[in-house]
Amino acid sequence: VSPTFLSPPSLDAASLNRYVKTYGASVLELDRSLAAAPAPPDLIDLTHGDTRAFTPPATAAADFHSALAENTEAYTAYRGSSSLRARIAPRLGDLLGRTVDPDRELIVTPGTQGGLFAVLSALVSSGDRVALPDPEYFMNERILAYLGAVVVRLPIEQDDKGLLSIGADNLAAARAARPRLLLLSHPNNPTGGVYESSTIQALADMAVDEDLIVVVDQLYCRLIYAGAQYTHLGALPGMIERTVTLVGPSKTESMSGYRVGVAVGPPPVVEAMERVVSLASLRAPGYCQQVLRHWAEDDAEWLTRRTAGHQALRDLMVERLRSISGVSVAPPAGSSYMFPLVGSPRWATNGPADDHEIAMAIKAAGVLVSPGYQFGPSGRGRFRINFSQDKKRLLSAAERITSALS
Amino acid sequence: VSPTFLSPPSLDAASLNRYVKTYGASVLELDRSLAAAPAPPDLIDLTHGDTRAFTPPATAAADFHSALAENTEAYTAYRGSSSLRARIAPRLGDLLGRTVDPDRELIVTPGTQGGLFAVLSALVSSGDRVALPDPEYFMNERILAYLGAVVVRLPIEQDDKGLLSIGADNLAAARAARPRLLLLSHPNNPTGGVYESSTIQALADMAVDEDLIVVVDQLYCRLIYAGAQYTHLGALPGMIERTVTLVGPSKTESMSGYRVGVAVGPPPVVEAMERVVSLASLRAPGYCQQVLRHWAEDDAEWLTRRTAGHQALRDLMVERLRSISGVSVAPPAGSSYMFPLVGSPRWATNGPADDHEIAMAIKAAGVLVSPGYQFGPSGRGRFRINFSQDKKRLLSAAERITSALS
Repeated sequence: VSPTFLSPPSLDAASLNRYVKTYGASVLELDRSLAAAPAPPDLIDLTHGDTRAFTPPATAAADFHSALAENTEAYTAYRGSSSLRARIAPRLGDLLGRTVDPDRELIVTPGTQGGLFAVLSALVSSGDRVALPDPEYFMNERILAYLGAVVVRLPIEQDDKGLLSIGADNLAAARAARPRLLLLSHPNNPTGGVYESSTIQALADMAVDEDLIVVVDQLYCRLIYAGAQYTHLGALPGMIERTVTLVGPSKTESMSGYRVGVAVGPPPVVEAMERVVSLASLRAPGYCQQVLRHWAEDDAEWLTRRTAGHQALRDLMVERLRSISGVSVAPPAGSSYMFPLVGSPRWATNGPADDHEIAMAIKAAGVLVSPGYQFGPSGRGRFRINFSQDKKRLLSAAERITSALS
Repeated sequence: VSPTFLSPPSLDAASLNRYVKTYGASVLELDRSLAAAPAPPDLIDLTHGDTRAFTPPATAAADFHSALAENTEAYTAYRGSSSLRARIAPRLGDLLGRTVDPDRELIVTPGTQGGLFAVLSALVSSGDRVALPDPEYFMNERILAYLGAVVVRLPIEQDDKGLLSIGADNLAAARAARPRLLLLSHPNNPTGGVYESSTIQALADMAVDEDLIVVVDQLYCRLIYAGAQYTHLGALPGMIERTVTLVGPSKTESMSGYRVGVAVGPPPVVEAMERVVSLASLRAPGYCQQVLRHWAEDDAEWLTRRTAGHQALRDLMVERLRSISGVSVAPPAGSSYMFPLVGSPRWATNGPADDHEIAMAIKAAGVLVSPGYQFGPSGRGRFRINFSQDKKRLLSAAERITSALS
């Protein structure tokens, strides 16, 4: 398998600009038409993980029930319960490879998404330029559009081991556009790729040289597969004072239904984030905050099992997708996403495949996937799946996707 | 007791403007100095209700546990679980005196605050004028400041039965300022006042005549005391198509720790709100949404008990506060707030009393209250308390406030 270049050469600068220009409303229209399209009764939803296939750790419900019985944590500080922050700060420090001051550098947010919105609202003003990998988590660009920011794209490449890199030319071009902020998910959503450590170092160098603030969404940083080396961007020299790292239990631990995440960053940024959270929803749900009490605590064995379970599904799904003629896919090095490219479905007779049409065809066959356009211009011809699913249902989804694309 | 005029005449137009101009940072500085001020170890916090004194109805935890056991509602639509919306729409219709389409006119939000933020973010742009009663819930003005909106103040009067009215002159002046939107809490936060039906009708007339959108935060509309008549603004003729009504179980039902609220409004506004919620935190917490399953369902008896319990505490607290020399207070007609005025504390030698100093003195005596400035210019010399507390602690707080102000 050859390296998969994520920006198809057919998307030149002019079409990129067109894409960006029409991103707002037209993307919502595409979303709506996909949502409205008919589907067979037993639609398999691969747009997110199945919390019944991979259930939350038992500590989550137990911690919630304790908090409810204690009945003292309904009204916490806007940045989250102070006793909880004191409790999890050392654990977060171990995870992120740095120290974390629970009072000044840590905020509990309404999900990792709530942290993302808070940090961008706090730091980004209309007209600001923000560097963003292509492809990236679709909500990143939508929040930036809501704030009136201008996106500077960093096209990324993914090799056949799922590792990501950003070419020196693309980095230099992004630098020349003089962004104020660098925003990225790592592992990358939608590819599941993990960045080469040399790329992470190059991003840190850019951030220090250009005095950028960096926001890194590490929601999936605990689900890394064998053979991949994961570098925490915020732990590199010179980065603690300029990096906001977002993490949370929504994905690896299947705890999305509680809506809690955490952000670690410089004290003034945490303070500004707290102000946004207080306006947007006061605080993360008081009782739900407490499900973090035992999150990521002494769970190495549990995490090994969970990672192995997902790695097996990853390998299975890569094999099934690659067996479809015209489809290529890089195995993700982390997360439960993959981002296959459909080179030539039978019904695409004019030019490259359209990822909206592809998602519509797959839905007609009984599987809901996230169409590539949601993730940036490089999503052309691609779709994202979340393979954190029941194995039988995932195999059934693979069959349906095969029939839709063959 | 004479009617309490909420805008002290000493606050002329020029000082109002100065107040508004310095509202942003200086208010945060005042907040910080109050938060940092030392307090005795057993501080009694009257800035919010005590969920141990008035506990949530038993259905809440039971519904949450069911949702967790079912494990199907972690990922709902951004506007909330569709089965839940179908279930609660008729009940909401009964409550609000109108019909509610569960698919098009209803959104479950991350608390009522999440609904407030979503609707204002969806509708208000920088420079828009928004009419707002004075005094009002402090977060209303902070969200508007965040959005760059210009506040048009509607000074309100409260009589000694706790009923609120807005004078014809003040209404005409607000109309002349040509606002785009009218935003109010009802019952009013911080006074606990309920608007006279003639004032509600005048607000509706203004909205229809001037083609305004109206956002009414009815978080406390189920906690109305004997003798008060409550009019739902959104149920008046011509109002359904222009009113967004926010409600939720956070206050009357003490369920703030779950962070769920609901908003009912015109379909295009609900759609725009959903987009904001999706950016700000994806959705209200999936499992927590389900605590609404039995919310406000066949609970007339429970509500009568809860209201009577609060009414007794209201009467007690009004009596205690009125026994302090120089303090006047109108008994709230609804909610668990009251907003006493300190006319002549011993340290107020020049002009009206300073509500920041008052709150600092009360804190030094062992009670945390919300200082008047947070609620608008008419808060000068006032403080807000939430009397949804354990009776003994409330009496102890009254003693401490008495010693601070005597």
